[in-house]
Amino acid sequence: MPRTVQWVGGLDGHVAMIEQTRLPEELVLLECRHLEDVREAITRLAVRGAPAIGIAAAMGAVLGVRDYAGTDRDGFLARLEEVCQLLGSSRPTGMNLFWALERLRKLARSSETADVQRLKEALLDEARRIRDEDAAMCRAIGRHGEALIRANAGVLTHCNAGSLATAEYGTATAPLYTAHELGRPFRAYVGETRPLLQGSRLTAWELSLAGINVTLLCDDMAGALMNEGKVDLVITGADRIAANGDTANKIGTYGLAVLAAAHGIPFYVAAPSTTFDLSIPEGSRIPIEFRDPDEIRHGFGRFTAPPDVACYSPAFDVTPARLIRGLIMERGLIAPVDGQAIAGMLAQTSACPDSL
Amino acid sequence: MPRTVQWVGGLDGHVAMIEQTRLPEELVLLECRHLEDVREAITRLAVRGAPAIGIAAAMGAVLGVRDYAGTDRDGFLARLEEVCQLLGSSRPTGMNLFWALERLRKLARSSETADVQRLKEALLDEARRIRDEDAAMCRAIGRHGEALIRANAGVLTHCNAGSLATAEYGTATAPLYTAHELGRPFRAYVGETRPLLQGSRLTAWELSLAGINVTLLCDDMAGALMNEGKVDLVITGADRIAANGDTANKIGTYGLAVLAAAHGIPFYVAAPSTTFDLSIPEGSRIPIEFRDPDEIRHGFGRFTAPPDVACYSPAFDVTPARLIRGLIMERGLIAPVDGQAIAGMLAQTSACPDSL
Repeated sequence: MPRTVQWVGGLDGHVAMIEQTRLPEELVLLECRHLEDVREAITRLAVRGAPAIGIAAAMGAVLGVRDYAGTDRDGFLARLEEVCQLLGSSRPTGMNLFWALERLRKLARSSETADVQRLKEALLDEARRIRDEDAAMCRAIGRHGEALIRANAGVLTHCNAGSLATAEYGTATAPLYTAHELGRPFRAYVGETRPLLQGSRLTAWELSLAGINVTLLCDDMAGALMNEGKVDLVITGADRIAANGDTANKIGTYGLAVLAAAHGIPFYVAAPSTTFDLSIPEGSRIPIEFRDPDEIRHGFGRFTAPPDVACYSPAFDVTPARLIRGLIMERGLIAPVDGQAIAGMLAQTSACPDSL
Repeated sequence: MPRTVQWVGGLDGHVAMIEQTRLPEELVLLECRHLEDVREAITRLAVRGAPAIGIAAAMGAVLGVRDYAGTDRDGFLARLEEVCQLLGSSRPTGMNLFWALERLRKLARSSETADVQRLKEALLDEARRIRDEDAAMCRAIGRHGEALIRANAGVLTHCNAGSLATAEYGTATAPLYTAHELGRPFRAYVGETRPLLQGSRLTAWELSLAGINVTLLCDDMAGALMNEGKVDLVITGADRIAANGDTANKIGTYGLAVLAAAHGIPFYVAAPSTTFDLSIPEGSRIPIEFRDPDEIRHGFGRFTAPPDVACYSPAFDVTPARLIRGLIMERGLIAPVDGQAIAGMLAQTSACPDSL
């Protein structure tokens, strides 16, 4: 599977990322050698998906401090701060972006060395560690979820909680990649995910590339597909999960969960512990972003609707915990879903963050 | 409301139809003065929707025989037959196309006059009558359905069972137009209807033009919209209704019916008696057409998915009668939906076809 974002070479190397705006038409690697290249890549969605953005930002910060010519530790830290501010303003909503930059800041501040060259090396190591930890987390989700996919099952997913949104393996897609590596035959069904078509542009592309048997559908075909008995389980990712298990994810997820329940099909959410927000007791408190109506009216280079028609354009919806059969996490499977089980699993996670 | 298809002038006149491939970007009237103009308009979907195609074909047949120079009745009938064969091959699946042409054939054959000029006039009258009857049928559906739309209700529809698919008023849209004419405020929600976007391109356009308060949504947003309490009822059209009330309609209809049931929202189907097929006892026997995968993969002038990915691409799905609160017909409302009530209503209809 191609690596979504990676550092190539030593400290004088560069960041290579998959240019996602060119998919599925062509696979192009974008080489970023300067801070501004990475910032621009994040801004124009060449890289997207919260974990992948976090990794790109960390590596971008390394590019930003690499050419610091001084030998003064305080000057270096000031430069790092400046770089983090710049990257932090590239996309204001993604949690992982701030979290990754904060990891670099903390490391630099707490480091005992005053040797700027060694600080630069340490930051590069940390950025690579962020990537590797994300990959390990995704792999662990795959290990805990693969058994849900029985031989010859039909697995429906939505949007792209895939390899392209993370370091590799993805979250919702990790059980699929793992089952495929184990040689188990199954069929992946991918909803195209209007308005921005992340399912057809990204998920169908990456699963096909891995040799998985993929069938694409328009979002309004999911009910008929389930009614034909072709879907054995649904797995989606999550953008934010409340303390009780209510899950905000790409718009359309809630509808799939309701349809799955009506057809007796188990519905799972795959997400790492970083996706949980225990400060939010239940889903109705999760703020929902509404997007530009032109993503609906003018999504394909021309108007497909009257230019001034009003649009209902939420980016996310909230699926209540009662519709979720299980949460597939890097530490294991939570099923059934309830607040106590979530709190227990998260306590366990934060106690041993490095032993994935 | 603009007239979808109409005859302008006397026997030396022409057919004017809305060029639907140019919507919603511009409203252009297509003038057809020769048989071939109409045939081409049907083939390339400048006019679509089963009733509208039937009307266009009838008027096209009049254009086809108008220039018959002979005075021989048998020669004229042979020419009519040739014209009907040509039009009948323009789109092979629409029932109304054959039904409309057959009406002209029967009229010409049973006519007692040998005067070719009078035969031509009679055929033009019949073609206009087909249009006017369709308009009257749609208006009657509107009268029987408007009371379902309470003041300030939210009404969701799917695809285009609208004015543009019929002579005027539409089927699913007829209750909306009627409630609007009565001055009742409400909000129409229109699903864009992938892959061909008839909802956003056509329904959002025609309802907006009438001054109705329209909000467009992507198909995967319907669940969230219902969950927000914004939808008070759903009304769709139908392509074919089995004897027990199971209804084949545009793909996505079934999913909306399941979502509506899960949210306690009544789901109605609006259709004239010509849509019923009593030879089919229940929905699983209705044949479902599967479409070209490129409608999904390449719907907007570029590939939005890997060019060779498999697609699930049914054009229709079947909604079981148990999910349908009522059938809004030109004779009245059938609720609850069952085979006996349907048979009774249809017997009544065929007994007095001309007294709408």
